[in-house]
Amino acid sequence: MKRSSEALGVPESGAVAGIVGSASPGKEQSVTSLDRWAIGRVAAGMGMPPVNLRLWDGTMPYTHPEPCGTIIFNDRKALWRVIVQPELGLGDGFSVGRIDVDGDLMEILTRCYSAVEANSTKAFKRGLLGRLPEADLNTLTGSRKHIAHHYDLGNEFYKLWLDQQMVYTCAYYETPSATLEQAQVAKMDHVARKLQLREGMQVIEAGCGWGSLALHMARRYGVRVRAFNISKEQLTYARERAAQEQLTEQVEFIEDDYRNIQGSCDAFVSVGMLEHVGLDNFRSLGEVIERTLAPHGTALVHSVGRNRPTPVNAWLEKRIFPGSYPPSLSEMMTIFEPSNLSVLDVENLRMHYAATLTEWLRRFDGNVDAIRRTHDEYFIRAWRLYLAGCAAAFKSGSIQLFQVLVAPPRNNRLALTRQHLYTENPAAAWGSGQ
Amino acid sequence: MKRSSEALGVPESGAVAGIVGSASPGKEQSVTSLDRWAIGRVAAGMGMPPVNLRLWDGTMPYTHPEPCGTIIFNDRKALWRVIVQPELGLGDGFSVGRIDVDGDLMEILTRCYSAVEANSTKAFKRGLLGRLPEADLNTLTGSRKHIAHHYDLGNEFYKLWLDQQMVYTCAYYETPSATLEQAQVAKMDHVARKLQLREGMQVIEAGCGWGSLALHMARRYGVRVRAFNISKEQLTYARERAAQEQLTEQVEFIEDDYRNIQGSCDAFVSVGMLEHVGLDNFRSLGEVIERTLAPHGTALVHSVGRNRPTPVNAWLEKRIFPGSYPPSLSEMMTIFEPSNLSVLDVENLRMHYAATLTEWLRRFDGNVDAIRRTHDEYFIRAWRLYLAGCAAAFKSGSIQLFQVLVAPPRNNRLALTRQHLYTENPAAAWGSGQ
Repeated sequence: MKRSSEALGVPESGAVAGIVGSASPGKEQSVTSLDRWAIGRVAAGMGMPPVNLRLWDGTMPYTHPEPCGTIIFNDRKALWRVIVQPELGLGDGFSVGRIDVDGDLMEILTRCYSAVEANSTKAFKRGLLGRLPEADLNTLTGSRKHIAHHYDLGNEFYKLWLDQQMVYTCAYYETPSATLEQAQVAKMDHVARKLQLREGMQVIEAGCGWGSLALHMARRYGVRVRAFNISKEQLTYARERAAQEQLTEQVEFIEDDYRNIQGSCDAFVSVGMLEHVGLDNFRSLGEVIERTLAPHGTALVHSVGRNRPTPVNAWLEKRIFPGSYPPSLSEMMTIFEPSNLSVLDVENLRMHYAATLTEWLRRFDGNVDAIRRTHDEYFIRAWRLYLAGCAAAFKSGSIQLFQVLVAPPRNNRLALTRQHLYTENPAAAWGSGQ
Repeated sequence: MKRSSEALGVPESGAVAGIVGSASPGKEQSVTSLDRWAIGRVAAGMGMPPVNLRLWDGTMPYTHPEPCGTIIFNDRKALWRVIVQPELGLGDGFSVGRIDVDGDLMEILTRCYSAVEANSTKAFKRGLLGRLPEADLNTLTGSRKHIAHHYDLGNEFYKLWLDQQMVYTCAYYETPSATLEQAQVAKMDHVARKLQLREGMQVIEAGCGWGSLALHMARRYGVRVRAFNISKEQLTYARERAAQEQLTEQVEFIEDDYRNIQGSCDAFVSVGMLEHVGLDNFRSLGEVIERTLAPHGTALVHSVGRNRPTPVNAWLEKRIFPGSYPPSLSEMMTIFEPSNLSVLDVENLRMHYAATLTEWLRRFDGNVDAIRRTHDEYFIRAWRLYLAGCAAAFKSGSIQLFQVLVAPPRNNRLALTRQHLYTENPAAAWGSGQ
């Protein structure tokens, strides 16, 4: 059975219209001067981007001397929806095929994002970039619904374009030529090194995805992990892997919300969960870290972020990641400062996420026929837009990836420098019996 | 001529009383039950620290089973001033010799700081740790007065206990056994590597001290530097050094406030100035960076900081560093976020500052006879308390040292990883023609 568009909140039921080609529905509408005026508004709103804007009759009321591609409005409705509600209008219009692009999707989005960031009119930018997060969105029940929406889309689907280990967060490219598989392993080691993992340590992981980091830490560093998640499909998969690898003694996968975590640990880690926590709950997350982390421990939070508090991308929040909000560093500090946790290290890995997403989109496109067997055209177009759009946003510097390492204030059992992150055998640098 | 106590704001004119020894002024006062009650209050307020508290008659109303030393109240006035105004009372009492310690000053302060952080009653802690910064303290005129108070104490004085290059900020110990001289050079290289300096770059330095970093960057990395400072004595010294080293073509030392910096640069650096800027002016500093920094540039701000917004240490602010305020990271973000500057890297070097201050105090003590020729006993005691107290505060985790590296949001000319900070020849890693 195909995933219905309805499940993703398609704006116009059944309207997966005119996926480029001959049967564009707007062909018969005649273009008016008002339509051409609207195109001028869209171009100005987007900061005069280096693309051409084409209408359904083939005319191009806005052209750029060095265009990297063309954005095509297949009918009047698509155009005017962008004027009224820029961001949702563009995303939804593309997803249903009322808007199309001629050229490389990611390149066009990257150049458009840069133009918006640099030149857009404020009102349009606000509309284009999104809306403020709703308060109290991520209650215990709300979070479960939001997480299921995205992460329970089917493990088979994710297998078609993630790396072999199913790591669905920013990879770490030690060199630009590393493969995605290498970069995901390097990311897990980078995190483990920052946490100075040693054999026998107790680790708590909040938001463990398909379990790859928990299993990697147990296998490679000899630690014991209690890993929390509220996505049923991910947990089923993670538990199967633990059994296959005979790591069930070392790694426990627990279906529960991060707010319910009890017990204590030597290291606390959360990779790619904070985006789903919501500002209102940052204080709760800080309390969980403060309450569970030993005085000699360290905690790492890895999250998509912003340069400053910014409304969430409305289309992404509505169609792809309900309840999500990437925070700025000052907002992230509301996790740590009230708990008097000391920030040791912050690293911005945005170009690594651009590379990761580029590779995910490449694999997605390479397997699109297989994806088409279980997912409809609307879903595929929306997901291509999501992957390409996020890569573009990282490349153009409008979103960031922060890894923040913290420790209780009186923890002096820390590495003197960060040299150990960059040596062949880091364990030796902090005296581990790995 | 000796520096008068008056210049440092001595609380009781001429009262450099009883510098330990026979002539303690309180010897004749008899101890009452009220005095013993007061000692109990002080001990509780300090979180029951691992020291003994002795009164002027030799009795110890508060003892600890494993004391690391003894704090001695030489008269009743000293004791009661601590009750009424804990922080100023302790600092001033020690400076004038009404309070003394038996044991290692730094060790006693470190253990007491840790006890205060962990167990102190809230009211006493607030009194002990300080007060909120006054608004509008650091006007253009105010800043000049504050900076002169500390940095114009005489270059000869600072030469007696700083490293050979006169670097008066946190050093960077690549290994624990490095000398202060090595660690200060390593710090300057660490900063230069973070900024990815290349030959021919234009650098602006805000708050350049005696010029060592500006000269080092020019000499070793072939950059041109415009270095700003408002301390006359420091600038005189810096200009002499530039002339001696024949670097006047490459390095310009400018007597002006950071708020007046004009022009543009490829790298902006400020090491140890932010502490004197004051929260009210963080936005101005951000605007200066935004306005001067090229789109492909990076900026580094190095500052003492806190785990969370915390009142400034009142004694330190009043007697040693008027107008100073060490910010938390969320407060530092008010420099960068309004300007949409992207944080690339934050490193906490607090243990490096503890080591630096320990070495400064060792040299200060080693040269105390020479210092005594130009500075009175009050000054010497106050400065020993300042150096030992800051080392203790870094060791106990109550203050931090943050190096924050930022870049304009669309700067993609950045190193992929931080590996280059830890290689022998970092310039090769970013293709420099150093």
